[in-house]
Amino acid sequence: MDDPKPWLTLARAQSLHAGHLRRPDGSTLEPLALLGDSRAALAGLGLGEASIEAIRNPAAEAIAADERWLAGPARQLVTWGSPDYPALLAMIEDAPLVLFVEGDVAALSQPQLAIVGSRNPTAIGRDTATQFARHLATAGLAITSGLALGIDAAAHRGALAGRGSTIAVLGCGLDRIYPRENTELAREVAANGALVSDLPTGNAPLKHNFPRRNRLISGLAVGTLVVEAALQSGSLITARLAGDQGREVFAIPGSIHSPLSRGCHRLIRQGAKLVESADDIFMELGALLAGSRLAARPEATDAQEVSGPALDKDYEILLDALGFEPAGVDTLVARTGLKAEAIASMLLILELDGRVAQQPGGLFCRRLPRK
Amino acid sequence: MDDPKPWLTLARAQSLHAGHLRRPDGSTLEPLALLGDSRAALAGLGLGEASIEAIRNPAAEAIAADERWLAGPARQLVTWGSPDYPALLAMIEDAPLVLFVEGDVAALSQPQLAIVGSRNPTAIGRDTATQFARHLATAGLAITSGLALGIDAAAHRGALAGRGSTIAVLGCGLDRIYPRENTELAREVAANGALVSDLPTGNAPLKHNFPRRNRLISGLAVGTLVVEAALQSGSLITARLAGDQGREVFAIPGSIHSPLSRGCHRLIRQGAKLVESADDIFMELGALLAGSRLAARPEATDAQEVSGPALDKDYEILLDALGFEPAGVDTLVARTGLKAEAIASMLLILELDGRVAQQPGGLFCRRLPRK
Repeated sequence: MDDPKPWLTLARAQSLHAGHLRRPDGSTLEPLALLGDSRAALAGLGLGEASIEAIRNPAAEAIAADERWLAGPARQLVTWGSPDYPALLAMIEDAPLVLFVEGDVAALSQPQLAIVGSRNPTAIGRDTATQFARHLATAGLAITSGLALGIDAAAHRGALAGRGSTIAVLGCGLDRIYPRENTELAREVAANGALVSDLPTGNAPLKHNFPRRNRLISGLAVGTLVVEAALQSGSLITARLAGDQGREVFAIPGSIHSPLSRGCHRLIRQGAKLVESADDIFMELGALLAGSRLAARPEATDAQEVSGPALDKDYEILLDALGFEPAGVDTLVARTGLKAEAIASMLLILELDGRVAQQPGGLFCRRLPRK
Repeated sequence: MDDPKPWLTLARAQSLHAGHLRRPDGSTLEPLALLGDSRAALAGLGLGEASIEAIRNPAAEAIAADERWLAGPARQLVTWGSPDYPALLAMIEDAPLVLFVEGDVAALSQPQLAIVGSRNPTAIGRDTATQFARHLATAGLAITSGLALGIDAAAHRGALAGRGSTIAVLGCGLDRIYPRENTELAREVAANGALVSDLPTGNAPLKHNFPRRNRLISGLAVGTLVVEAALQSGSLITARLAGDQGREVFAIPGSIHSPLSRGCHRLIRQGAKLVESADDIFMELGALLAGSRLAARPEATDAQEVSGPALDKDYEILLDALGFEPAGVDTLVARTGLKAEAIASMLLILELDGRVAQQPGGLFCRRLPRK
């Protein structure tokens, strides 16, 4: 990236999001062009007073603090329209224009399942979150959550135990880790995935930041699993946002006598998929992704076309190298020259997409397209 | 009834049901007219060899045994087209032409909820069945089940504890009570509701009788609640039949680690309503009945028009006596001359139907028809 200052200025206009870039005639604005707009023009986009002030009168000291934070190891700004901006997140109505990331930005573009739930779960609920996360992470899905105590932390830990990738989205600036108890866990997440926030440094974990944060958890993921949640749980907000964003919602049932099952039961009544095992989630996601989302990526609009032709070409090469005779990843590495890691990740997407079938012994073969 | 012998003869044609009475031109046959039909005509209706033989060559001794059984106290034959034949059961495709009943035949026409489940439930499942049955029976729904050990017995006992009405449908002749352990319970059911079977005396509780029996459990009821059921449970057959019959299916969720929750979870995934409390069932049934079924009764076909104009007239009298000012049952007894018990039952149906609203203090008032 060239100078990050213009993007850091936009990041401090906290009500600004990608929705403000769409013009009535269907065209889209360049984010950085906003910096030259008048107060009246910015107000015309629907921005509030505080955001207009942040753009017209940038907070130099705060932005300097962001730059100091960015100078640390494995830290990066991911901006709207860049190849690193995650494609699924770009599809939501109110996608942030700037993401602060610590860790591996590539993790944000992996297929992810969000796992959220109570901060005070039962021992069984905690164990369920860990087991599901471990199983799914081992199978190649990244696990996204909010680093909270309870189910969130159990989900991150399960993904780490499964040697998978995990993403924690915070409701504060990444210069603070909240809650304190999970500081060490945050370090492990950054080393095996990423910490993410759309809030610049210096932002405290204020209550109103969490619903805002939750839209990123659901928006990054193909689906959200709620493990245990009371009727007042913030996890139900994440689930509702997932539904609004057109993503799948999964919930785990429990005893009718447990208050921590009430939230999940309400979700199921509202149409969430009842799941008993991690395999249930795989089966649902397979059907889901075959239909539309990841499959639709090549037809995405300009602003969302982040994977680029190179990615599509790799998929073509891989599919050409793969016949209807089962082949392993090593064979495919030899045939294509692609890296084993990239092939494994692409095979997962193709499998979810219904174009590849996994065979016993870790082998893969093509399958005829579904109708 | 005049001579029961012709009906007892039909009862022994065990594959015969009301569906055989429908002719391609839309008209319906008189059941007793079948007794004069030739073997060829009976075969033309789709009857099998054994049923044809039972009609053409009646088993005099067996029928004499049925007559001896019928001579006992509180025993009755309920025949197709008679005013005692339950309206909801008459609506199913394969309704039996003859029911053997011990107890109060009027109970069969009460609004009923079927509660079924495992023969080997957990202590909590058994308790749940009892509590739901008691609550719903107290509120005026009769509870229908199959007298089996486990959930069935708990449901009957809950209804009795709630001083409500309960109906047990058996998979054998009523001269035998199966299982033996529930002999005393069967006596209480007969004294506070009814024992029912479409199988004549002498029929043992053979395995293949139970799916046949299950269609009567679901067919008598407006909905079926499954409390705990393994994936292989016969309760899932009852639930499937309820669905096929257009009735509501309810299931209680539980731990994903309990094999006895698997059946309920499968039902929920297939569209059964997840319920956490007896009130959930009331709310669903209210919406259900307001829409169609009991409300549609006056428009039923001839063969199903069993409630007769007298019943409709009573409802008219009751609604006329009821204003938009709340009134209690005693007031309504004074205004209409109807019995308190009849009024309570009619108020329940009208409430489920959306035409009457219950007010605090056990008072009722009319409400404007829903759109």
